[in-house]
Amino acid sequence: MIIELERGRQATLDQIRDLAVRFGNRVELSEGTGVYDTVHIIGDSREFASRESYILGLPGVRAAWQPTGGYKNIARVVRGNEGKALHRERRVVEVKGLDGKARRFGGGKHIFVCGPDSPQTLEQTLATARMAREVGEKFGILDRVMLRGGAFKPRTRPTDWRGLGMKGIAIMDAAREETGLPYVTEVMDQNLVEQIGAHADMLQIGTRNAQNFDLLEAVGRFGKPAILKRGFGNEAEEWFYSAEYIANQGNLDIVLCERGMKTLYTKGGYCRNQPDLNACTFARKQTILPIIFDPSHVAGDHRIVAENLMAACGHLVDGSITETVHTEAWRREQLCDAGQALVMDQYSILVEAVLEYETHVAPKMKAILRMLGTD
Amino acid sequence: MIIELERGRQATLDQIRDLAVRFGNRVELSEGTGVYDTVHIIGDSREFASRESYILGLPGVRAAWQPTGGYKNIARVVRGNEGKALHRERRVVEVKGLDGKARRFGGGKHIFVCGPDSPQTLEQTLATARMAREVGEKFGILDRVMLRGGAFKPRTRPTDWRGLGMKGIAIMDAAREETGLPYVTEVMDQNLVEQIGAHADMLQIGTRNAQNFDLLEAVGRFGKPAILKRGFGNEAEEWFYSAEYIANQGNLDIVLCERGMKTLYTKGGYCRNQPDLNACTFARKQTILPIIFDPSHVAGDHRIVAENLMAACGHLVDGSITETVHTEAWRREQLCDAGQALVMDQYSILVEAVLEYETHVAPKMKAILRMLGTD
Amino acid sequence: MIIELERGRQATLDQIRDLAVRFGNRVELSEGTGVYDTVHIIGDSREFASRESYILGLPGVRAAWQPTGGYKNIARVVRGNEGKALHRERRVVEVKGLDGKARRFGGGKHIFVCGPDSPQTLEQTLATARMAREVGEKFGILDRVMLRGGAFKPRTRPTDWRGLGMKGIAIMDAAREETGLPYVTEVMDQNLVEQIGAHADMLQIGTRNAQNFDLLEAVGRFGKPAILKRGFGNEAEEWFYSAEYIANQGNLDIVLCERGMKTLYTKGGYCRNQPDLNACTFARKQTILPIIFDPSHVAGDHRIVAENLMAACGHLVDGSITETVHTEAWRREQLCDAGQALVMDQYSILVEAVLEYETHVAPKMKAILRMLGTD
Amino acid sequence: MIIELERGRQATLDQIRDLAVRFGNRVELSEGTGVYDTVHIIGDSREFASRESYILGLPGVRAAWQPTGGYKNIARVVRGNEGKALHRERRVVEVKGLDGKARRFGGGKHIFVCGPDSPQTLEQTLATARMAREVGEKFGILDRVMLRGGAFKPRTRPTDWRGLGMKGIAIMDAAREETGLPYVTEVMDQNLVEQIGAHADMLQIGTRNAQNFDLLEAVGRFGKPAILKRGFGNEAEEWFYSAEYIANQGNLDIVLCERGMKTLYTKGGYCRNQPDLNACTFARKQTILPIIFDPSHVAGDHRIVAENLMAACGHLVDGSITETVHTEAWRREQLCDAGQALVMDQYSILVEAVLEYETHVAPKMKAILRMLGTD
Repeated sequence: MIIELERGRQATLDQIRDLAVRFGNRVELSEGTGVYDTVHIIGDSREFASRESYILGLPGVRAAWQPTGGYKNIARVVRGNEGKALHRERRVVEVKGLDGKARRFGGGKHIFVCGPDSPQTLEQTLATARMAREVGEKFGILDRVMLRGGAFKPRTRPTDWRGLGMKGIAIMDAAREETGLPYVTEVMDQNLVEQIGAHADMLQIGTRNAQNFDLLEAVGRFGKPAILKRGFGNEAEEWFYSAEYIANQGNLDIVLCERGMKTLYTKGGYCRNQPDLNACTFARKQTILPIIFDPSHVAGDHRIVAENLMAACGHLVDGSITETVHTEAWRREQLCDAGQALVMDQYSILVEAVLEYETHVAPKMKAILRMLGTD
Repeated sequence: MIIELERGRQATLDQIRDLAVRFGNRVELSEGTGVYDTVHIIGDSREFASRESYILGLPGVRAAWQPTGGYKNIARVVRGNEGKALHRERRVVEVKGLDGKARRFGGGKHIFVCGPDSPQTLEQTLATARMAREVGEKFGILDRVMLRGGAFKPRTRPTDWRGLGMKGIAIMDAAREETGLPYVTEVMDQNLVEQIGAHADMLQIGTRNAQNFDLLEAVGRFGKPAILKRGFGNEAEEWFYSAEYIANQGNLDIVLCERGMKTLYTKGGYCRNQPDLNACTFARKQTILPIIFDPSHVAGDHRIVAENLMAACGHLVDGSITETVHTEAWRREQLCDAGQALVMDQYSILVEAVLEYETHVAPKMKAILRMLGTD
Repeated sequence: MIIELERGRQATLDQIRDLAVRFGNRVELSEGTGVYDTVHIIGDSREFASRESYILGLPGVRAAWQPTGGYKNIARVVRGNEGKALHRERRVVEVKGLDGKARRFGGGKHIFVCGPDSPQTLEQTLATARMAREVGEKFGILDRVMLRGGAFKPRTRPTDWRGLGMKGIAIMDAAREETGLPYVTEVMDQNLVEQIGAHADMLQIGTRNAQNFDLLEAVGRFGKPAILKRGFGNEAEEWFYSAEYIANQGNLDIVLCERGMKTLYTKGGYCRNQPDLNACTFARKQTILPIIFDPSHVAGDHRIVAENLMAACGHLVDGSITETVHTEAWRREQLCDAGQALVMDQYSILVEAVLEYETHVAPKMKAILRMLGTD
Repeated sequence: MIIELERGRQATLDQIRDLAVRFGNRVELSEGTGVYDTVHIIGDSREFASRESYILGLPGVRAAWQPTGGYKNIARVVRGNEGKALHRERRVVEVKGLDGKARRFGGGKHIFVCGPDSPQTLEQTLATARMAREVGEKFGILDRVMLRGGAFKPRTRPTDWRGLGMKGIAIMDAAREETGLPYVTEVMDQNLVEQIGAHADMLQIGTRNAQNFDLLEAVGRFGKPAILKRGFGNEAEEWFYSAEYIANQGNLDIVLCERGMKTLYTKGGYCRNQPDLNACTFARKQTILPIIFDPSHVAGDHRIVAENLMAACGHLVDGSITETVHTEAWRREQLCDAGQALVMDQYSILVEAVLEYETHVAPKMKAILRMLGTD
């Protein structure tokens, strides 16, 4: 069962917890960004839910629901305490940097996650990280810039390079130390969630593991913010259900990431994956989670990354995660996805284009959505 | 065989024509927008082509090619007269209105084609056309606005309404008369190309007829500008080959139109077709033709038309064709595709968003493309 | 409106015709293979249908229906005259040869259509036709063998060879004359339906024209039996609606043909199209029409034609249409789809395999379907 | 590096092992079914491979290869020791039962794996297992029958039933004890491979974990025979690469399982997944592994399981894995995939149909393949 509760209602929270313990459940609290928090009753909560009228009567309870199907923890529209449809507040996922600033996914401004596909050397990673910081400073958006870098790489072929492992994590730590920017990195093995999570500011679950349910639950229990990429061949609602696996452990700090789907048409040789941008708009309507876009894996070629990121802005995504290299020369040294990383000089102009979009175009878009009632 | 010839080389053109007649071929001239025109040798031109060295030696001939495969008439990159790869000038397709202004597809500015799915009554059509004119006047872009309206409708089910036929054409004529705006309308039957073409300013070939080769050739022979929608299930290069059927009759005034593809994911209920925006970028690289986008058939729902059009702007399309209605009330009266038409009030803001994009964002995009050498 | 009427009820038929004429409709009669014929009221039959109770009361009328949606002419399950769901008799489509035998599609035995992709020379076509006759004689199934050959070829590229046209039809006529076997050939141009149809025993509508509605109606009006291939990218019900366009003109002699769909997976290089065999089973459940399978276009490679045809037998298709050449040497001379034609020697063994399947395996399959109530 | 070595060449094997240890590698031996075994050099074997000429000169070495790409361990065609293409023996995967009989996947006869989606109660599971045994006895094919049953169930939704866990394994153990039939069960968690593997005769890796590389390697290290289902959205070669992850740990006892792919067309409501039968034929050509088919997950509806299994027989698959229930009544009690299980009575006739196919049809098919050189 899920309960929306006004912030600061400690007495009610205690009563909920007592009831949960009595029925063998555990309670997790996800802080909301408005005036409501979300209380998750973890475990089989059918007995607990049979006390619905009691719960709804407690002071500060706005809604409580126990859908049999549906991705109940993350759904945007739920049944409120008078039986009416109720729109929940959208979720803002915060990732704090050493610089003391919080990157706020879903906070209304585009968050720029960038960096190497994977840290290969300290020099390369630091160079890219410093340039990311410079871009943030140049445009006065340091609180919207974050690093990315995969130390553990999933590879279709077992003989391909799989990343530096914990050495790569140490390099990312150094990049954070130097720049103050927080970083996200992929975790593939449920047994490494705590070890990697002790370092990284945010964890990423990749495409191939989007339905590795043990991993999803491990990340859910761990509790740090996570980016969940859409799985190979997964329909939009299968993706939301994967997010629900994390949320169902009491962790609502999930950022959905669209990275394009293989279709008949992606075999034409002109892009690696066909972006399903309408799924981003659908996610905004169906869930409370922020949604970002990965133009690099969609494109598979740095020469069309810019077009794809701007296209996603048309769907008002909350951010992007883009592979970047510090120099054109470095592209040749990359051991994975060499062709898709954008040089930082070009990325800097692309950031500017997104900012121009936010300033001049997005307000018009929002005006239309308000007229249509879909904002 | 295709020959690129400097404008004004009448003597050379006469020599080419003489040679063509001698080998049983016909000559068609497509005027270019730069300093070169394209000369098409229609019919089996193998004998003609055996005189290649003679032709390349004629004054003013820049290139001549006779590929065995490939969409030779519309290809961007061809073999020049020294055997080197040569980039042809991109094509600008002009459609003139009664107002004396030419709408220039591919001329660097977004062309806005709008209007009803189909003219049902004179009042409705005039109302929408007047509002289209007002939008053009409001933003000072009258030379970028055109009307659309289907009098002959292809319908999956034989019992569905199929449009007013020639009565619908008469209504579109009246809308043009009243507003000065030129219009495009669909032709499905090869036997009606001349009859409809005598009225319309531009012909449209729809998705279901994209590989109706007799129709394509009839439109090619007729010679008026045409919009060619991408066919159901067609890969990008199949679409280019359909354009080649038109071009092969000597008509290069073709505007490609991406309208989304059915994929596994479009069955999620959140959009009708998945736009293949990277195919637009691919078309710009592979062909000389302008390319526009149809957000209405992609969306299938007016509430997501705006997002889809702005996404296409990310790929720098040359224009858009959008279904519009004059009032919300009218939507209920529509006999076809009722849900996808945008009310003119909302469309007006969307036009503004596109113009803001052109002014503030597109220059950044073009700067990146120049750095990448893909402009 | 559609009416099912007992055979031989001339008085009732006259009354129906009178009523139809009065409301501006035309009547077409499709003879059934059981004791009921189907009467089609052509044109807008809403006024006519308002006399439903009168019609249902006429002697010999078993059912009459006027669905607003649905493929009413070909649907398997319709509303009977007491308002109950009623399963119509499945359709048997007969094609008679000069040998006086009727090939009965849907009559419970696999019909073997074979022959060249297109007749290129008289010798080649006669050689293949004679071998087809020999196969029929060898297995005592001459009344189940038919010829195929395309004189008018749809080609993605305008410069590819498009067949011999009416000269090719003359060659097919000669092959029929020599062997007594009837033939089917493709028609692409609505203006040629009568001209080609005056020669051919059966017309084929190809994949690219499956939604060329003018052509479908022309074939419907013409009345000869037709094979309707499933269109590029068409969902199963879109295909049924295309059949409905033919049926709606009063021609129920339609044979559906599954020829595989392009999907993401067909890009793996191991087959040209992915057969949608479950759509064949679905067609048998939803429509009264026979359904055949084209293993050649699915395979795109003669080395996997056999596997694909046998797979279709698992779905109990009513026949197959297979490209064959008389000798391996001839394959190299083919101007279209050279790789997919099976040599007649191999085809002969494949025919034997299908006959073994019919004798030994199909009865077990039918026993299961009877237990499941899906026969 | 992979080495093919004659059986019984212990001295050569020792020399190979010494060399491997020297370069920090480990050696695993996969016994072949003919006269050659496969020696896998595990770990980074580049240094080891630099001694290629020495290795090729050792007595009994037939081939040694170290491809940079490719699924080297399982590829059918490799480079032999004279640099020529060499076809490896196809793999036979044996699973022994308590009854002392080996089920031989790839041994030329269809292996029938059947049983409940998941064991829910002892009674239900025993009833189904006994009926499976009876089917085996009835047709004299007890050495071709195996059980299946999932104790750990992957579920798209976190709130769906996930199986009985180790209690379910105990039930499967009891079914084996009672019937002597070996069983296969799914493992999803790399940490449970040893625990589940200590009980089960064969492990299954499911669709959602087909690219969970840690799990694949754990199963590879564990060494027991495994069924590898094709992953959601995975192209055929991605599937082979997943098998390569297992093989790369020295375990070649892998059975590939095609279970259908989601495509645009599976949304028509007439099947759950579109089988990619040509991928089965492709797998037979590209790899040495046996390949089986899962008609239950393709169909998603027990009423079309028979058609789909017979279709797969057209592609000469090595076996099938089918969900069965003992009675129609039990279907209603199932907690997962209730609709797709076939009642044992019907399954028994289906087994008979497959056996008839083997006897009467398959020999004709094999004759064609021999003529084509693709057997």
